[in-house]
Amino acid sequence: MEDAVEMSDGSNVLIVGSVALDNVKTPFGEVNEALGGAAVYSSVAASYFAPVRIVGVVGNDFADEHVGFLKSRGIDVAGLQSVSGETFRWSGYYDFNLNQAHTLETKLNVFQDFRPHIPPQYQESDYVFLANIDPALQLQVLDQVKSPKLTVCDTMNYWIDTRRDLLIEVLKRVDVVFLNDAEARQLCGTFSLVKAANDIRKLGPSVVIIKKGEHGAVMVSDDAFFAAPSYPLEEVRDPTGAGDSFAGGFIGYVASTDDISEANLRKATIFGSTLASFNVQDFSLGRLSTLTQQDIVDRYCEFRRIAHFEPVE
Amino acid sequence: MEDAVEMSDGSNVLIVGSVALDNVKTPFGEVNEALGGAAVYSSVAASYFAPVRIVGVVGNDFADEHVGFLKSRGIDVAGLQSVSGETFRWSGYYDFNLNQAHTLETKLNVFQDFRPHIPPQYQESDYVFLANIDPALQLQVLDQVKSPKLTVCDTMNYWIDTRRDLLIEVLKRVDVVFLNDAEARQLCGTFSLVKAANDIRKLGPSVVIIKKGEHGAVMVSDDAFFAAPSYPLEEVRDPTGAGDSFAGGFIGYVASTDDISEANLRKATIFGSTLASFNVQDFSLGRLSTLTQQDIVDRYCEFRRIAHFEPVE
Repeated sequence: MEDAVEMSDGSNVLIVGSVALDNVKTPFGEVNEALGGAAVYSSVAASYFAPVRIVGVVGNDFADEHVGFLKSRGIDVAGLQSVSGETFRWSGYYDFNLNQAHTLETKLNVFQDFRPHIPPQYQESDYVFLANIDPALQLQVLDQVKSPKLTVCDTMNYWIDTRRDLLIEVLKRVDVVFLNDAEARQLCGTFSLVKAANDIRKLGPSVVIIKKGEHGAVMVSDDAFFAAPSYPLEEVRDPTGAGDSFAGGFIGYVASTDDISEANLRKATIFGSTLASFNVQDFSLGRLSTLTQQDIVDRYCEFRRIAHFEPVE
Repeated sequence: MEDAVEMSDGSNVLIVGSVALDNVKTPFGEVNEALGGAAVYSSVAASYFAPVRIVGVVGNDFADEHVGFLKSRGIDVAGLQSVSGETFRWSGYYDFNLNQAHTLETKLNVFQDFRPHIPPQYQESDYVFLANIDPALQLQVLDQVKSPKLTVCDTMNYWIDTRRDLLIEVLKRVDVVFLNDAEARQLCGTFSLVKAANDIRKLGPSVVIIKKGEHGAVMVSDDAFFAAPSYPLEEVRDPTGAGDSFAGGFIGYVASTDDISEANLRKATIFGSTLASFNVQDFSLGRLSTLTQQDIVDRYCEFRRIAHFEPVE
């Protein structure tokens, strides 16, 4: 059983995105200056499956223990630029509806002038995840990597509003795109997520994955539609990083198996859901930092039971 | 294959609820004075699986062709009271967000004084569906039926607001309850649908089914959680009656198999989703009136493909 989620010695994952210190408050508690950022959540999630290289930027206030934690997960931090100034900070809260983040403050700090520099030894990475950053920067990453086996990108409402043309350039060049339901509707100007997914596929990506929070996720590809359930939790303590953990679990599993068949991408979607479901059970990286391979396999099996129904006879 | 959805000669279904004439407008068109009502949608959906008896009330303006249509589906209309006055009418519309009905006008008409009278030959019905009506009337039905094998009820936000105590009496006495996600949250005062479902089970029903429209449905029972996907439609032409078709498909399938095991209730949930997915593809009973058994089996099999993912090896 455990073989399926054993660390691969072969294919690796390059992840580019934000590294942050977050202040987060939810009905279940709060954290201050906690490790966060899309690249961190996705790298840690992916690290359960495959060797990960992270590219991002931190200020000189970024604690050594955070770097030590990433290294302890086997993440290669040679691409983590450390520059003078303060690390990117995000403050936000969630109330009754944990699907909806409310931003109190965003301080870009050193992230403001971030230009992704992909070290030479990363340029032939097998799998590339462009976490949610300015599409202009995502294009710069794509210019630097050499024929990866699969490229995956994420984005957000802000870029759809302000950088639509550049985002569409990115979509032309990636294989898989992740969006949440609101972003898919916004990008396509349609309420139907099925129509939105099909419209987005026409822009370039052969696979569109729409994340729906508590409602699971759907993956749309050539002639195939896959609906993944969410994991039933009575308590979501902190949804921050759920989408990033999802993406990290997804691309990490794909890298560990080196298999981009539709059937395997379905499994990857469930592993993504698995990592996301663990992530929201605690603040910051609280739960993702303590997982075992057996935890992951057990939850994957639970997803199988949740989704199972018999054929007609 | 077709056996699974073949009409049962044995167990039957009693359905009590509204019979209506609807004016509905959606971005895809409109209908006026079209046949509708929860008892009609659910009876027609159930009629693909098992013999159905309908109890409701219509005015003397109710066209013979509507009665003829119900009879053509094998539905026993001896419990359909015809009284002097006008039939219940509902006018509403849907815009961009087809999950949200906007009511323009509700004229209860003869439904105002409806008291469900269960004819003697119906009192030993095997399966009972209490469609969305005043919980006081649902209790009257429960008082009249003799040890059914399974009782199922639906409700709506209005009764949760205005008749909470009576609704809770109903919940004590039924086996299965259907709610949509907003209603479950409203009833329990919690955002978590998992927690809401567990709270509702403590009120009585051993099975809680939460309908989530485009996000499918979840069924919560003893130690088991089942997530059913929705069927991916680019166009939902008219969502009216989706929940009722779901309930009808569910209880009809259970009656046809006479099997209330959790595994079979999962199948019933998918058959419910199947009937609901057909229903929303046309206005009124447009699509539900033209289905074949093969259409139903084919779509059930599509649901299997949509939900399928491989085990970890």
